[in-house]
Amino acid sequence: MKRGFGSDNHSGFSPEVLEALTKANDQHALAYGDDEATARLEMLIRETFGQQAKIYLVFNGTGANVLSIDAMCRSHEAVVCAETAHINVDECGSPQRVVGCRLLTVDTPDGKLTPNLVRTRLHGFGFEHHSQPKAISISQSTELGTLYTPQEIRALADLAHKHNMYLHMDGARLANAAVALGCSFKEMTTDCGVDVLSFGGTKNGLIMGESCVILNPALDVDIKYRRKQMTQLASKMRFMAVQMICYLETGLWRRNAEHSNRMAQLLKKEVEQVDGVHIMYPVQVNSVFAQLPRDVWKRLQEHYFFYDWDEDADVVRWMCSFDTTEDDIHSFVNALKTEICRK
Amino acid sequence: MKRGFGSDNHSGFSPEVLEALTKANDQHALAYGDDEATARLEMLIRETFGQQAKIYLVFNGTGANVLSIDAMCRSHEAVVCAETAHINVDECGSPQRVVGCRLLTVDTPDGKLTPNLVRTRLHGFGFEHHSQPKAISISQSTELGTLYTPQEIRALADLAHKHNMYLHMDGARLANAAVALGCSFKEMTTDCGVDVLSFGGTKNGLIMGESCVILNPALDVDIKYRRKQMTQLASKMRFMAVQMICYLETGLWRRNAEHSNRMAQLLKKEVEQVDGVHIMYPVQVNSVFAQLPRDVWKRLQEHYFFYDWDEDADVVRWMCSFDTTEDDIHSFVNALKTEICRK
Amino acid sequence: MKRGFGSDNHSGFSPEVLEALTKANDQHALAYGDDEATARLEMLIRETFGQQAKIYLVFNGTGANVLSIDAMCRSHEAVVCAETAHINVDECGSPQRVVGCRLLTVDTPDGKLTPNLVRTRLHGFGFEHHSQPKAISISQSTELGTLYTPQEIRALADLAHKHNMYLHMDGARLANAAVALGCSFKEMTTDCGVDVLSFGGTKNGLIMGESCVILNPALDVDIKYRRKQMTQLASKMRFMAVQMICYLETGLWRRNAEHSNRMAQLLKKEVEQVDGVHIMYPVQVNSVFAQLPRDVWKRLQEHYFFYDWDEDADVVRWMCSFDTTEDDIHSFVNALKTEICRK
Amino acid sequence: MKRGFGSDNHSGFSPEVLEALTKANDQHALAYGDDEATARLEMLIRETFGQQAKIYLVFNGTGANVLSIDAMCRSHEAVVCAETAHINVDECGSPQRVVGCRLLTVDTPDGKLTPNLVRTRLHGFGFEHHSQPKAISISQSTELGTLYTPQEIRALADLAHKHNMYLHMDGARLANAAVALGCSFKEMTTDCGVDVLSFGGTKNGLIMGESCVILNPALDVDIKYRRKQMTQLASKMRFMAVQMICYLETGLWRRNAEHSNRMAQLLKKEVEQVDGVHIMYPVQVNSVFAQLPRDVWKRLQEHYFFYDWDEDADVVRWMCSFDTTEDDIHSFVNALKTEICRK
Repeated sequence: MKRGFGSDNHSGFSPEVLEALTKANDQHALAYGDDEATARLEMLIRETFGQQAKIYLVFNGTGANVLSIDAMCRSHEAVVCAETAHINVDECGSPQRVVGCRLLTVDTPDGKLTPNLVRTRLHGFGFEHHSQPKAISISQSTELGTLYTPQEIRALADLAHKHNMYLHMDGARLANAAVALGCSFKEMTTDCGVDVLSFGGTKNGLIMGESCVILNPALDVDIKYRRKQMTQLASKMRFMAVQMICYLETGLWRRNAEHSNRMAQLLKKEVEQVDGVHIMYPVQVNSVFAQLPRDVWKRLQEHYFFYDWDEDADVVRWMCSFDTTEDDIHSFVNALKTEICRK
Repeated sequence: MKRGFGSDNHSGFSPEVLEALTKANDQHALAYGDDEATARLEMLIRETFGQQAKIYLVFNGTGANVLSIDAMCRSHEAVVCAETAHINVDECGSPQRVVGCRLLTVDTPDGKLTPNLVRTRLHGFGFEHHSQPKAISISQSTELGTLYTPQEIRALADLAHKHNMYLHMDGARLANAAVALGCSFKEMTTDCGVDVLSFGGTKNGLIMGESCVILNPALDVDIKYRRKQMTQLASKMRFMAVQMICYLETGLWRRNAEHSNRMAQLLKKEVEQVDGVHIMYPVQVNSVFAQLPRDVWKRLQEHYFFYDWDEDADVVRWMCSFDTTEDDIHSFVNALKTEICRK
Repeated sequence: MKRGFGSDNHSGFSPEVLEALTKANDQHALAYGDDEATARLEMLIRETFGQQAKIYLVFNGTGANVLSIDAMCRSHEAVVCAETAHINVDECGSPQRVVGCRLLTVDTPDGKLTPNLVRTRLHGFGFEHHSQPKAISISQSTELGTLYTPQEIRALADLAHKHNMYLHMDGARLANAAVALGCSFKEMTTDCGVDVLSFGGTKNGLIMGESCVILNPALDVDIKYRRKQMTQLASKMRFMAVQMICYLETGLWRRNAEHSNRMAQLLKKEVEQVDGVHIMYPVQVNSVFAQLPRDVWKRLQEHYFFYDWDEDADVVRWMCSFDTTEDDIHSFVNALKTEICRK
Repeated sequence: MKRGFGSDNHSGFSPEVLEALTKANDQHALAYGDDEATARLEMLIRETFGQQAKIYLVFNGTGANVLSIDAMCRSHEAVVCAETAHINVDECGSPQRVVGCRLLTVDTPDGKLTPNLVRTRLHGFGFEHHSQPKAISISQSTELGTLYTPQEIRALADLAHKHNMYLHMDGARLANAAVALGCSFKEMTTDCGVDVLSFGGTKNGLIMGESCVILNPALDVDIKYRRKQMTQLASKMRFMAVQMICYLETGLWRRNAEHSNRMAQLLKKEVEQVDGVHIMYPVQVNSVFAQLPRDVWKRLQEHYFFYDWDEDADVVRWMCSFDTTEDDIHSFVNALKTEICRK
């Protein structure tokens, strides 16, 4: 199996991460986050997202998302999200089991919620037979590789707050979004009224670096107990903290995201010229969604691993990583062309 | 704060682990456990625990224990365990929230269950008002640093199976137990009838290496979905797998455990000669529980971090790590003697 | 507020029910279902639904539906249902909290699932990131007052079983369906392959009579514990049992359902002649869904309680009860006509 | 099987209840508690327990207790209760499943908590590894037929409030307690600082009458959604409300409880004179716990149903009902004497 375009978590980690781990290994430290590295990360997060920000490191994106939902909602409440949202499609029902709440999903053309789309689910307030809408959740970048502008985020935050609701952002690929939009993390989150953020670096060059960042201090209640109880408290937390510190302090997040975004642009440019390949969505970050003949992508999968995104519609997803090379792309596009010709 | 005896997760990781991570970083791999390293670990686990054994890597001990309980019990069922068991005392109610079941606790003199103690909770079978006893959970070594002999484990397994129940072992410190008893992992688990094992290496020199090992194939049902849903599925799982491989293949588990056990013996030998210090339990693995005057241990804590285990009874816990040195112990004992004299 | 068309649980209970309660009050009886009335009901249910049927009395429709789902699914599994299904819309997220599972909803034109509609959600089997489809749930009659023919039910059962899934029927209004279709309870359920049934009489003349009937014996596992644990075990159960016995033995179910269905036909016949009123769905049981000018139904609600079903579309629901009279209908239609004219 | 002493829910209901149901059946009413009877009950509860009191009708004692716990605790919190408490022993783990929290149990000599006993579980505040104690739960009368004085209740409330915790009272037999202590409901609850009350009448002559009464308005948050979601919202609620109204307004609670308490005194007086029978606890309400030779109580159970309370210790429970007669008692005591002589 060749280095391919399966996912940005198929790649390994950046060499800087190993250095960080090594340095952090020189002495004993308190466990469970009472160590100096975690304290330093907390400070760094305040610098990055504003003084009210509080980070809770967790193990994975599911943990970050579920802890975020748990911070906003009780079980009789509900989260409005896109039908395609990771929390809806790809968590095996974790919010339902761990938080016990409902997700109110909305069909979208491009993975993005809009105030008008959200409003279709804002019914039944005060009616005890209905789960009470309490949060809106968006992904930045979305699962379809599209982006919200800061203005769009602000509009959703305003809608949420007007209804005494919260806005959550799933930022598993926040770095790719920041680079693409040319704005800071804070400009896309705190400054737009986001209340809780799932902030991750695992898909962008870390071994393991995920977190729930509480941006609205009113929600910073009992989170440490909730994290522990939902099985997401790390003992040797410092080794997660130093990865995230390295990510933020050395600009690793930017270097890696710039690269993977650029590779996606290159890939898009190459494949859109291939007859029979149709690009589905604007390529804004590090993924390309393409529609192409079934036999072609099926044969291509014999050599390269990638996901069929919508098998019924013959749409596949190609995802670039921080370590994708131009050669990787050229080889892949050549293979694609070969398969198209064999058709 | 000096290198002390707070916990075996206050130490860092063994250098071998870094090598393993580095080697595993040379190429892309499928995520979520569909990689070669995880496959190799699965084979290694079969070699270690028997051909029927199946490992599910998780992030931490809480995850391992809760997934294990989830494999054995539904929410209307119950786990019999010692009052001092980690699953009862130190998981912030995670089994209750995630599995929804009850724990039926038993007071013990030394952290160890016996068939007679367990039998006091084996009531109400078939009576729908009572949670149905479905599992026994023991820790090897126990939270009090004591050990079960293989015969004792077998007796508990027999009792469990006679009642159509299962036996779970919390093996967060299984290596220390194996070394102390001079037996293999398999001889303490599979061969004794253990059905599910929480098997961990994080407290013995890994960065992160915990797992739920299903030894009874009848329980290997839908575990992968349950792991995912309870937020314990790692994306870049190979970097956890290679740590565990290194742990098992290079004998790291044995070297580290032998050392920390030996250090505990040294510590015990030194402190039991100090007037006013009373050793509470047999020192069988890497911990020493001591009773000593309150003002002494309180002053000692100004220099060394360690946990008061039972503040009412003035019992404290001193835990040795894989990297504890003889110097660490001599310095600590000297400090202790100084504080005793100041009394 | 006049006797209106708000819901079939706005009416009281049939006089036969009071007699049954009185008779059952002559002596002591064991609690929690170990009484003779409950035993007799169990026998009656076997006669009604087939020898393998097992009834579990519960307090309300939510309890019946959630216990049914609990019998079919674990938390990592999912139930395919119509977007309009009561379990989706009107249980305040009870399946999510109590069972922890997902509902996979499908838009329907008339509240009815079809095999083709269900198939759109039958994806991701074996893929641990996705909740595993394990049950299909239909309502007979549906929340929109429409009906499945036995053939349609059989087709859905076949589809479910082909995928190792189960078919659940929410039969809160099963009597109305049986009467309308001219078939027995068994012909619509057991004979069609339904696995679990929520069977209720509260909406048809009982004070309280709801149940989960397990038709597939393979699912009759530990239900009694699950019912108790989810808070649905009645102490003086015999007083629920005798209501259900009366319902089945005296033909009360049929008399009441025939009447309320007939009243709905009358109501439909009267209102469909009124200009400006559009009947939305086939009137097959005891409800009429009508679209009419907003100011009209708003003014009408000042005199009569009824639910706006889809406020955006100006659709309201009028529901007939076992004790609705022809006079009730004529008065109501006159009031409607008056409001239409005032327009 | 003769009318015996199995439980106070083995008896039927008082004739007044039937009248109340009949009267309430004369017209339509809104469902789910939006009816006039429920409103009237709410007023009556304010008169009974103080103006801040808010009643939520539920179906059974389990529902009342679990909703009460849910009002006080989130899943990472814990309830301190007696080992013998109904919520611990007889709910099949319902608090664990539905709320997800822990119960911290205390051994007691007589089913009663004391501040000193409670304090043994008030540890680990602020420590995220431990469930946080958030409530104390007591039963009045207790499961062993003993009573708290108002002073004792006040002391527990003070302890709770001092630790930012709440006091819950399981009042399934509150009427028996009030009669025995010669005080009003309010004097034992609101006036003593009780925050939440499970208030029931099913064991004292109603068909079904249980409730969660919120006495501390700070806890009256979102309860209606929580009740619905945990499956405890009744549709034809008025028929539960009128039973409770009848209970309170007509003095039914007092008449029935006085009678059953008096019968227990008679039973106690008779059996304590029988050789070989040892009364275990003070007989304060309507139950008698007795120790007697195993063969005797086993043979007696062939004629009378009653529960062995502690089979190991040969302790059985005899419970009197509102309709127990002096003849019932004399017959039973005669049968007991016969069996003792046969010994």
